[in-house]
Amino acid sequence: MKTVKVGLLGIGNVGSGTYKALEMNSAAIEKSAGVHLEIVRILNRRPEAKRAVDVPKEKYTADPYEIINDPEIQIIVEVMGGVEPATTYMADALKTGKHVVTANKAALAVNGKMLQQLAMDHHVMLRFEASVGGGIPIINAVADPLVSNQYDEVLGILNGTTNYILTKMTENGADYAEVLKDAQAKGLAEADPTADVEGHDVANKLSILISLLFGKQVLPQDIPTQGITSVSGLDINYATEFGYRIKLIAHARKENGRLICSVEPTLLPLSHPMAAVSNEFNAVFVRGNAVDELMFYGKGAGPLPTGSAVLGDVIDIANCIAKGAAFDVQPLLHYDSDLEVIGEGMAQYYLRLTAVDQPGVLGNIASTFAKHDIGLKSVMQRAGINDKKTSVPLIFIIYETEYKTLMSALDEIREKNFAKSIDAVMRVQER
Amino acid sequence: MKTVKVGLLGIGNVGSGTYKALEMNSAAIEKSAGVHLEIVRILNRRPEAKRAVDVPKEKYTADPYEIINDPEIQIIVEVMGGVEPATTYMADALKTGKHVVTANKAALAVNGKMLQQLAMDHHVMLRFEASVGGGIPIINAVADPLVSNQYDEVLGILNGTTNYILTKMTENGADYAEVLKDAQAKGLAEADPTADVEGHDVANKLSILISLLFGKQVLPQDIPTQGITSVSGLDINYATEFGYRIKLIAHARKENGRLICSVEPTLLPLSHPMAAVSNEFNAVFVRGNAVDELMFYGKGAGPLPTGSAVLGDVIDIANCIAKGAAFDVQPLLHYDSDLEVIGEGMAQYYLRLTAVDQPGVLGNIASTFAKHDIGLKSVMQRAGINDKKTSVPLIFIIYETEYKTLMSALDEIREKNFAKSIDAVMRVQER
Repeated sequence: MKTVKVGLLGIGNVGSGTYKALEMNSAAIEKSAGVHLEIVRILNRRPEAKRAVDVPKEKYTADPYEIINDPEIQIIVEVMGGVEPATTYMADALKTGKHVVTANKAALAVNGKMLQQLAMDHHVMLRFEASVGGGIPIINAVADPLVSNQYDEVLGILNGTTNYILTKMTENGADYAEVLKDAQAKGLAEADPTADVEGHDVANKLSILISLLFGKQVLPQDIPTQGITSVSGLDINYATEFGYRIKLIAHARKENGRLICSVEPTLLPLSHPMAAVSNEFNAVFVRGNAVDELMFYGKGAGPLPTGSAVLGDVIDIANCIAKGAAFDVQPLLHYDSDLEVIGEGMAQYYLRLTAVDQPGVLGNIASTFAKHDIGLKSVMQRAGINDKKTSVPLIFIIYETEYKTLMSALDEIREKNFAKSIDAVMRVQER
Repeated sequence: MKTVKVGLLGIGNVGSGTYKALEMNSAAIEKSAGVHLEIVRILNRRPEAKRAVDVPKEKYTADPYEIINDPEIQIIVEVMGGVEPATTYMADALKTGKHVVTANKAALAVNGKMLQQLAMDHHVMLRFEASVGGGIPIINAVADPLVSNQYDEVLGILNGTTNYILTKMTENGADYAEVLKDAQAKGLAEADPTADVEGHDVANKLSILISLLFGKQVLPQDIPTQGITSVSGLDINYATEFGYRIKLIAHARKENGRLICSVEPTLLPLSHPMAAVSNEFNAVFVRGNAVDELMFYGKGAGPLPTGSAVLGDVIDIANCIAKGAAFDVQPLLHYDSDLEVIGEGMAQYYLRLTAVDQPGVLGNIASTFAKHDIGLKSVMQRAGINDKKTSVPLIFIIYETEYKTLMSALDEIREKNFAKSIDAVMRVQER
């Protein structure tokens, strides 16, 4: 049986998951893929750190180039994370004719184009299934058997930490801060949760999906991104009353030559298949012109799920090596579309305003919306909320409106003091 | 650009969907796959029938061998359905060195082993993504990037007709017969719905999934199969009260060297991601040893969704032809496992009995369960149901029990006349 030697750059969460997934399944892999896979060398930048797997010490090295330049190694697995030095290591590995498998969404979102070109120039494969949706085989599924579709829309729940927090806030009526602490205690949120809760992690993943599905490079920093830190229990409750769940949604769609995209807390109707995606689970929902709705659901993070996606790519490449198959039948990022990229486009919105409780207030606000041609789908006014009941919350769900138009209307409401404050503006994603 | 010529055996629902999906996406396919695909010849056994697509008459032939033996055609798409003559046509096509794409679950379930061997012997591909789950790319997803997992369990909602009927019965409290009529009027059920509502269609699909995931040939007729015709509104309501949905579930799992499998109406807790799969949608849920839970959701039927899966396989093959890639990197059915196939195994069950409303009845029944070591998880007794209130419904959910043990207990309850009738026995699939 042919042995294919693999080098691992990184032995953190995903690295040890990859190592363990291979240990667990090597007999089955040999049987079904006909290849013996061996991780021969591992970059370990903190040799003193305790690792989740028991690796023979002699496999470790602190020098990445001992791996990248090892002529026996055919596949490099990059699971360090971060744009640099990961990008440089991957580029150098591709240049020496090695296949690369990566789980690195940040490096791919920014440098995917350059890395993919290097892979093509050197007739090797660059695979990245684990970079979006962890263990969910979304990349290969939408890029490969489904070129028989053109996609109009993609929605993703792409971050387990934030989905867990929103789920617990919804189920228990608990506060953001309280649930965050609980998530940290359970290992579902980092000590510094910024990249997750502010939506940056999701923006990287959406950037990759946009290249894959719509053929456009949109850098993560160019995607309007809002995290979950400002989502209040109040909004979650009102959403529930209206029949919606609030989820942190990565969204992109093609519409009349425009590419609409954003990462933001979004109201989904309970009938939407994404509304039932709970706790730390992830899902990707696409709409194709032939297949209609498709959804892929699974664990978006965690050592073993993500490791199994990395390993799946490694097996595919090893299979190609063993069988002498061509290396260019693989998912590709595309960058050649002439879509005009805009952020927020047409959408329904959920609005929460605080108004002074006096006659005429609702009329003034409603008239301002009407003046801007904004139709009201649902309106709810509740009894006063402060001690003297001088303030009332007003909740609106408005029909499809251009984001810009909505902003003009809200500016006018603010300027004319029709509302004391505009507390929440959230997209509503109807099915 | 290379042209790859395709012959279509059949121009019914799936055939016209394939034709249309290609029409809609041919420019995109040429761009992304670098191949021009042309359906050059179509078997049409009823030339007088009206078809959903506008096909130039000269493409039609009534003789399948004009297609199978055409040296210019490299890919044969079989979308006729039924075991024969489809199997013979596919076998003959493979023998003449043509690649075959099929959506035919019945032929594959019975003759997959022979057809796959023929494909291997003649160094061509046999692809069958559309045979299970229609447009959902389940076959390629679990067979390909996920050999990095060993699967323990698969659950499927694999028939749109029955899922639509059960959804409407649940939502509207409507009767089976009434909903069936509505489904027929909407084109979601056939005039003769037997194959769907009796579960035979699902058994074919489960047979294919078992080969794919567990490496065993289990013929559809050897899978314990129960349809939905005996599901009553009463059971749907009780299930709802206990926090469950009733779905027609194809189920298989490995357990201590045994393969448990069945197709039957099953109670799923509301927290199960499959419980939210509604109307005509399908889903496949698998549990892998590394990836944990995965679910794939989409349209399991319909011309365009299914056609797009067929077309995806065609594109893959054309891609390989154009690039001179090897033809043996593909999903494979396996038949070499030594699992002992049994039907029903250990499970929780939902039971509905009708008993005489007199003192001691519940005690007798409960004691009989206890005697057989069957633990009661939930018990519900309702007020009398007939005019004289002499009969009462008793609902039980029992803890994990071997099916055989449950049958012995129920036999004893019947023999001793502790119950007037045993009205429902359904698996409960906890998450």
